[in-house]
Amino acid sequence: MEPRISIVTLGVRSLETSRRFYTDLGFPTTRSVESGIIFFQTGGTCLALYPLEKLAQDVSPELSAKRTGFTGITLAYVARSKTEVDAVLDAAVAAGGVIEKIAQEVFWGGYSGYFSDPDGHLWEVAYADLWSFNEDGSLVIE
Amino acid sequence: MEPRISIVTLGVRSLETSRRFYTDLGFPTTRSVESGIIFFQTGGTCLALYPLEKLAQDVSPELSAKRTGFTGITLAYVARSKTEVDAVLDAAVAAGGVIEKIAQEVFWGGYSGYFSDPDGHLWEVAYADLWSFNEDGSLVIE
Repeated sequence: MEPRISIVTLGVRSLETSRRFYTDLGFPTTRSVESGIIFFQTGGTCLALYPLEKLAQDVSPELSAKRTGFTGITLAYVARSKTEVDAVLDAAVAAGGVIEKIAQEVFWGGYSGYFSDPDGHLWEVAYADLWSFNEDGSLVIE
Repeated sequence: MEPRISIVTLGVRSLETSRRFYTDLGFPTTRSVESGIIFFQTGGTCLALYPLEKLAQDVSPELSAKRTGFTGITLAYVARSKTEVDAVLDAAVAAGGVIEKIAQEVFWGGYSGYFSDPDGHLWEVAYADLWSFNEDGSLVIE
């Protein structure tokens, strides 16, 4: 197995609502809702949207699509400045997201907040001096 | 917001167990359990492991770490051949994962199976002629 994640797929209640949410945030796609699945042109790992029940069915016919409690997974967007953290959180609210944690100085030395998307999927938006970026926008991980 | 996911963080019960699982599968890291968080050197989006309760707390002190039912998120690894799909699923089992869906021909034209990691996080492993890869191993998304 090569060390890479090809796709992160979010199960969503409404492809249309979530497609609009992520395009409002700046994720480009050529896909329409009619295609049944949305792929965004993201650097490195592709972000995809798929109806929640169909995603559960894709794993197993026995898997209930009911979601309760914490998913146990978060996505993170590392911004290039504190100002960008605030701007992304503002943009998430404007697009219909919910602030779960107001941006603040955090214990590990960063500045970080969380928003949730229309289905409650959690995104951390963070900045810290310790992070640096490769040319393609991915993080330098040592 | 630039269209990229910087990090996917999986909440885990045991950093040690999950670190071993993913290193067995081929994900490199310089981090030890003592550092409190594991980052893998993945192409594009970084894969991270963090204790489940701490991850919940990081979002909100009110968020229960209890997970029930379907997370509503899947990760996908697109392989370069059907043979590689089978090999990755075998490797996942050898590393302590569970097959959730035996690799099979699927409705969209691919060959796909699922495994879950020691915390039940779901990975699809798939191959299809329709996918092609960029030089860095990421998918060509049109």
